[in-house]
Amino acid sequence: MKRPSLIALATLTALTVALTVHAADPLPSWNDGAAKKSIIEFVTKVTKLDGPDFVQPAERIAVFDNDGTLWAEQPIPFQGFFTFDRVKALAPQHPEWKERQPFKAVLENDMKALAASGEKGAMEIIMTTHAGMTAGEFEKIVKDWLATAKHPRFKRSFTDLVYQPMLELLAYLRENGFKTYIVSGGGVEFMRPWSEKVYGIPPEQVVGSSIKLKVEMRDGKPVLIRLPEIDFIDDGPGKPVGIQKFIGRRPIAAFGNSDGDLQMLQWTAAGEGPRFMLLVCHTDAEREWAYDRQSSIQQFDKALDEAQRRGWTVVDMKKDWKRVFPF
Amino acid sequence: MKRPSLIALATLTALTVALTVHAADPLPSWNDGAAKKSIIEFVTKVTKLDGPDFVQPAERIAVFDNDGTLWAEQPIPFQGFFTFDRVKALAPQHPEWKERQPFKAVLENDMKALAASGEKGAMEIIMTTHAGMTAGEFEKIVKDWLATAKHPRFKRSFTDLVYQPMLELLAYLRENGFKTYIVSGGGVEFMRPWSEKVYGIPPEQVVGSSIKLKVEMRDGKPVLIRLPEIDFIDDGPGKPVGIQKFIGRRPIAAFGNSDGDLQMLQWTAAGEGPRFMLLVCHTDAEREWAYDRQSSIQQFDKALDEAQRRGWTVVDMKKDWKRVFPF
Repeated sequence: MKRPSLIALATLTALTVALTVHAADPLPSWNDGAAKKSIIEFVTKVTKLDGPDFVQPAERIAVFDNDGTLWAEQPIPFQGFFTFDRVKALAPQHPEWKERQPFKAVLENDMKALAASGEKGAMEIIMTTHAGMTAGEFEKIVKDWLATAKHPRFKRSFTDLVYQPMLELLAYLRENGFKTYIVSGGGVEFMRPWSEKVYGIPPEQVVGSSIKLKVEMRDGKPVLIRLPEIDFIDDGPGKPVGIQKFIGRRPIAAFGNSDGDLQMLQWTAAGEGPRFMLLVCHTDAEREWAYDRQSSIQQFDKALDEAQRRGWTVVDMKKDWKRVFPF
Repeated sequence: MKRPSLIALATLTALTVALTVHAADPLPSWNDGAAKKSIIEFVTKVTKLDGPDFVQPAERIAVFDNDGTLWAEQPIPFQGFFTFDRVKALAPQHPEWKERQPFKAVLENDMKALAASGEKGAMEIIMTTHAGMTAGEFEKIVKDWLATAKHPRFKRSFTDLVYQPMLELLAYLRENGFKTYIVSGGGVEFMRPWSEKVYGIPPEQVVGSSIKLKVEMRDGKPVLIRLPEIDFIDDGPGKPVGIQKFIGRRPIAAFGNSDGDLQMLQWTAAGEGPRFMLLVCHTDAEREWAYDRQSSIQQFDKALDEAQRRGWTVVDMKKDWKRVFPF
């Protein structure tokens, strides 16, 4: 079923794309500097058809952490706000929570008491708010929450707090034949309802942490019930595992911002041929936040040391980004 | 970053594809009949831009069982031959297997003794042959096996025993903007090394059963070790779960051949808008095998009953297919 005219046309389109991409600055929100230069050099070399570093489009897999890499994560990762808001929304059906930890702590915004409830308390809150409903119901809960919830500092939707330079980077990679994936420690079903609209990343290209599911028949139709049991934690050493499970190919480019991304970057770096690893450093207290090595969210030491030692690209938000958010 | 000339060109390409597709018979190995007609009618209606049943390309997800749906599965599913051949290849390093079940049974081709070892025996053989190595090593083992192994009846490579009509169907769906997935009870890492070459389905679009993985550092580089522990069984009620975990969208078309596919077809059928469900019946003892309701591999009763009751498409291999295999 060869169609020479079609193939010719497709080639022409590819050429036009190539010419158009090179004509304009693909990363207008990035200041000219080492970080921007390293990105463009990498993309140029792996797409140069007759070059020594050419990579087949099928192998052009790029993986992105989400919290702190594609959108902000302060003062706490945004799924935390979702979780607390869910506890408050469900509280009228659970009058006993007024006196019961860890729910009491959430209802009273008592972060100290919440921290005292430890991992067991956190898990109880997560399972109460994320399990027990169908997959479809949970998707609607996430969408409804996003439609009204506001970030405490910026008074804007959480999905407004995505990084404009990273949106440009995602688009630039896709225009150059890359398949872009999210590989995040966040809940996969928390990200999928909005990843396509916000990042242009479809649900099937989102890898994340998950709880177990089971099929149940309701009114003669199957539904998927979310069970209060961890299925997979996509963080740290879980990230290369998640990449293998869900993608089944090693990426050639990886983007992160914490020690939780280190193994993902190491796994990417350990492949053959050209590789690109990038870490985002939060250095801009005015436009965003400055934390980095002093992060209260997730440690960021080993990954930064390794980036410096191995020459991975390190983005200094304050210096490298003209704009931080799209607004 | 709009590029009007590019968009015009892309539209032109899409139109040319549409015209070209309609000009030739997209399913030349299918006899004219109800099955072929139902496929073409479905694809035509979901791709008709101004029609009431139009489906956005992003939502055109089609899922295929593998064993018995895309390739043959007799006298046993082909991963079984791989497993037995691995036991034989590893036997020189395990002289004790000559006297130890279930290995003795495999080495002596004693299927009765093997069956007597039950699920515990089967699991021991699977873990011995599928775990303990890195993901990269296992990929090479599968590729090396496929390069020389022959099917006992046809004396051909196992990857020759794919169904020509299904290859045409996969290509036809993709030409019409569908994303084609394998959703199989077979091992995901057994299928990924060859799915792209044989079916045009890339590794990231293969969902299957899996064992657990863990990251380990070797010579300063991370490797993924395959552990002798089940991670996920993608069969029966596991199929809708696998679809949600790995794809995160409900398919609009599903293809199977046994009761192990029933829940996948039910899950697909239960969505809103146009749906297409198809079952392949093995009715051709001469060109392939005739088994169906009498299958020794996997039960095929409930799915067939439901297909008849609900008007799903049922393919009679003998009547509906002009050719079975590409050779």
